[in-house]
Amino acid sequence: MTQTPTTSPVEEKIYVSGTIHKDVRVPMRKINLRPVEGQERSLCVYDTSGPYTDPMAKVDIRKGLPRIREGWIEARADTEFRSGDVTSALKKIGSRMPEMDHTARRALPRRTVTQMHYAKQGTITPEMEFVAIRENQNRAILRKRFEELTPAEQERETRLQGESFGAKLQEYITPEFVRDEIAKGRAIIPANINHPETEPMIIGRNFLVKVNANIGNSAVSSGIDEEVEKLVWATRWGADTVMDLSTGKNIHETREWILRNSPVPIGTVPLYQAFEKVNGKIEDFGWEVFRQTLIEQAEQGVDYFTIHAGVLKDHAALAKDRVTGIVSRGGSIMAQWCSYHNKENFLYTHYEEICEIMAAYDICFSLGDGLRPGSIADANDAAQFAELETLGELTKLAWKHDVQVMIEGPGHVPMHMIKENVDKQLECCDEAPFYTLGPLTTDIAPGYDHITSAIGAGMIGWFGTAMLCYVTPKEHLGLPNKTDVKDGMIAYKIAAHAADLAKGHPSARDRDDMLSYARFNFHWEDQFNLSLDPQTARKFHDETLPKDRHKGAHFCSMCGPSFCSMRISQDIAKQEAAREATQG
Amino acid sequence: MTQTPTTSPVEEKIYVSGTIHKDVRVPMRKINLRPVEGQERSLCVYDTSGPYTDPMAKVDIRKGLPRIREGWIEARADTEFRSGDVTSALKKIGSRMPEMDHTARRALPRRTVTQMHYAKQGTITPEMEFVAIRENQNRAILRKRFEELTPAEQERETRLQGESFGAKLQEYITPEFVRDEIAKGRAIIPANINHPETEPMIIGRNFLVKVNANIGNSAVSSGIDEEVEKLVWATRWGADTVMDLSTGKNIHETREWILRNSPVPIGTVPLYQAFEKVNGKIEDFGWEVFRQTLIEQAEQGVDYFTIHAGVLKDHAALAKDRVTGIVSRGGSIMAQWCSYHNKENFLYTHYEEICEIMAAYDICFSLGDGLRPGSIADANDAAQFAELETLGELTKLAWKHDVQVMIEGPGHVPMHMIKENVDKQLECCDEAPFYTLGPLTTDIAPGYDHITSAIGAGMIGWFGTAMLCYVTPKEHLGLPNKTDVKDGMIAYKIAAHAADLAKGHPSARDRDDMLSYARFNFHWEDQFNLSLDPQTARKFHDETLPKDRHKGAHFCSMCGPSFCSMRISQDIAKQEAAREATQG
Repeated sequence: MTQTPTTSPVEEKIYVSGTIHKDVRVPMRKINLRPVEGQERSLCVYDTSGPYTDPMAKVDIRKGLPRIREGWIEARADTEFRSGDVTSALKKIGSRMPEMDHTARRALPRRTVTQMHYAKQGTITPEMEFVAIRENQNRAILRKRFEELTPAEQERETRLQGESFGAKLQEYITPEFVRDEIAKGRAIIPANINHPETEPMIIGRNFLVKVNANIGNSAVSSGIDEEVEKLVWATRWGADTVMDLSTGKNIHETREWILRNSPVPIGTVPLYQAFEKVNGKIEDFGWEVFRQTLIEQAEQGVDYFTIHAGVLKDHAALAKDRVTGIVSRGGSIMAQWCSYHNKENFLYTHYEEICEIMAAYDICFSLGDGLRPGSIADANDAAQFAELETLGELTKLAWKHDVQVMIEGPGHVPMHMIKENVDKQLECCDEAPFYTLGPLTTDIAPGYDHITSAIGAGMIGWFGTAMLCYVTPKEHLGLPNKTDVKDGMIAYKIAAHAADLAKGHPSARDRDDMLSYARFNFHWEDQFNLSLDPQTARKFHDETLPKDRHKGAHFCSMCGPSFCSMRISQDIAKQEAAREATQG
Repeated sequence: MTQTPTTSPVEEKIYVSGTIHKDVRVPMRKINLRPVEGQERSLCVYDTSGPYTDPMAKVDIRKGLPRIREGWIEARADTEFRSGDVTSALKKIGSRMPEMDHTARRALPRRTVTQMHYAKQGTITPEMEFVAIRENQNRAILRKRFEELTPAEQERETRLQGESFGAKLQEYITPEFVRDEIAKGRAIIPANINHPETEPMIIGRNFLVKVNANIGNSAVSSGIDEEVEKLVWATRWGADTVMDLSTGKNIHETREWILRNSPVPIGTVPLYQAFEKVNGKIEDFGWEVFRQTLIEQAEQGVDYFTIHAGVLKDHAALAKDRVTGIVSRGGSIMAQWCSYHNKENFLYTHYEEICEIMAAYDICFSLGDGLRPGSIADANDAAQFAELETLGELTKLAWKHDVQVMIEGPGHVPMHMIKENVDKQLECCDEAPFYTLGPLTTDIAPGYDHITSAIGAGMIGWFGTAMLCYVTPKEHLGLPNKTDVKDGMIAYKIAAHAADLAKGHPSARDRDDMLSYARFNFHWEDQFNLSLDPQTARKFHDETLPKDRHKGAHFCSMCGPSFCSMRISQDIAKQEAAREATQG
């Protein structure tokens, strides 16, 4: 079951060390390219795949991943172990669990252990240095100063300058910049003290746009093995975080296997498990079972929680004329609870208690958009924006407790109404990172919603969304399988990268330019290896031109040899050069 | 080989008759839906699939499609038959050709037979009435007047109002509006008098956004049968026009089979065949062989020609510092010709002679963007925009000859630079329709360029592009096969529809709203049938819930029964209604 995709010889897994914190080792994927004029060439790319793609690492999912953050957490001396957690209890009664012991930690009394807390105190944690190095993607050479460029290069830089809509992209990310952004709440590092296996990453609009993959079983489909496979598979294709949205059997066990084997932060919607505990009976549901579930998941190591605290009792009325009502699972359950009990949402009334729990483990809020639109017709309506305003209020309250926050966003939105979502979110939530699902730009293509939504995701990422939640082709139709996970991931890596390019992220264009250079020069292997999915690119090419010698060919089957514009372009250049030589 | 996709019983092929021209019969696909409260419900959608999906039609590709426009052309009495065309000559020497005789027509001396000519004279042709009816998609009921809507409906209409960037979308398209747009050059109806099989369609930004599919063999891959299959397949998935870009063997024969069997306008790049005639030797290439090829293709019935007349001799220098040089096949050949012969582009110097040929058959110009960017790095550069300015000049010259024109556009463009392309094109070319390839918003995903470009296509369609040229997953890697054609088409139908929604096209939202209504109400079959690809939607759903009774289930495998937000939403409504009833 262990997924260890083989790395081709042109790829290397490298680690870049920290300077402030010597034991920080940041993984990257180095793509080695064909030398040009005797010069070695390579490109380092962001690598979310964890030890699974390290040929030196021995991964055994029964034992879990190395606990790389354990020493950092230990060194801060602000946590204590707690016995009697649910995982231990379940193990005792023989539940299927990973072999190693995971003893839960929590903050010492009256201590706050969040990255935001450290940041506000002026401390640069190893996690902060890790993400700073990671964001820079090991660019060996910074871009030259503008004045040092040739006129043609200057023209290109000026022409291609991005439009960042107020994002403050840095030429080079320093650990201090990371600290400052975390302190201001403009970025988060989801890193529960009980998930020491995670390789730190940052979510904020002044950083690379990130992608989340949803996995998790339902009562109808899938088991533990399959979900762990999907986790590894998703990170192989670039998932920056993974949400385990299981609602079926063995929720706790599934999550334990996922957490112990995940190199990326894991998010959940604790409401799902809490609601299962009362067998889906709204009459039995309430704060106490929810609180217990929060602690249970906090001790397992979940890095961020979707909390639907913004669905207020009065908001439901605003949604009653909608075409598709309330489409968030959590949102609909909380609306039903408010209606049934005729009380205000207990997540709202107990919000500060939730903050205290989050602060004791460093769990980030992902403030849920329970009233997001589920169809084009419901986009940007009063219900949606009323909730967003509440989320703004809750953001400030979380920050008071030094708890990190991001804000979830829609959903289904036609193109011309997307920007309003970002503008309003930035304003209401004081630039807390935005985390959107899609949005889908039309409702008419079930089976292809990775595409309907990649359009919206690219745009909303450009406008300022910090993390995109992928949508798979199965959306609205069924639980995604591995193929769907990959298709969703690739579509969203495209959207996120297109957004980075349009924002003008200083490192984004390197990969495009290198791939285009390879394309123009018929370096077919470089073109494949620089692409998001080398296997597929190679396979498509080889369908018609499978032979090795075709990898040096100055054409492909699309145009054939006589009509290859790139070959002709090069002929023109030679022709012109020859003419100039004769004339000179 | 004949493609006759079966139509399911929920679908009907219907024909809507003209009122000005009684023999106009406009095909549409009627999707019958589940009755609600005893009311029959259905939606008519635009249908590009031709007689192939009409169970009453007997299609035999050896005999070609019915020549529905023959009588209209005949009735205008401004054309004559011409003998000795290439098809007849080739038949005599035993080339494989369709069975029926196709005798070429051309305009009588000193007569112009273009739709633009008729439009300027104030004549509403059957073609114009046909497209007017077609664009309205048989909306039985026009939208109510704003004042007649309920407050909730008024709020929705106001909120969802599109942003059309100056496009003049009509609530209902009249034949007179069509005539006026054609006369002004803002829209075109590609309809060669020698392609009477075509079902007229219109391209202009005040109409539905259209999609073109490229097919055609290369010297390396594919044959005639396969290309005819791709044609029928592409129109089955919504191709509004098809370009035959064959550069391999049997170019003339392949095109003859395609034309005689195509219900949609066919475009070509005559340069390819002309260049093949001189065996790809730039030294032997020139105006005369090009002129003969134009006439050969005009007599076969090609509806629009890509003509690279804007690639001027001086432009090539502007492209020399590019990362990917000249990536248009035609553009690179013409640049090479200018360079080799040290002369101005013969398509430019002979442009008015070309106009005269186009006018005699009613062929539209698709003024080629030979200098379009082939990579993000080359987007919106001086070479590209210099050519666009030349295309503006050529547009006016074509209009002087009453020849219809559209303008080709890029290519590879990052999101933030897309709008400039449309703005500049509208300005330079006096609102002649824009026809763009993609654009791809990043270069890093070969194998997925239908997605990298669907993002750009959706956006550029919103901004004002009238027709999108699809990009398949095989772009840059090889010649597309049938699967690729379908994947490209679906991605582009999504982009075009998302653009219509964002522009605020008055009929666009009906399908989204009906599908969303079906989704919310668990009318699974309606949801599938209203989607762009019912088979795939149904297949995905049935992977986990295959039984018939699941088609009535109030959940799917994504969330399972307890966590279905739509089911809960409905429960809340019932709960609230019950409470009101008790209180009342």
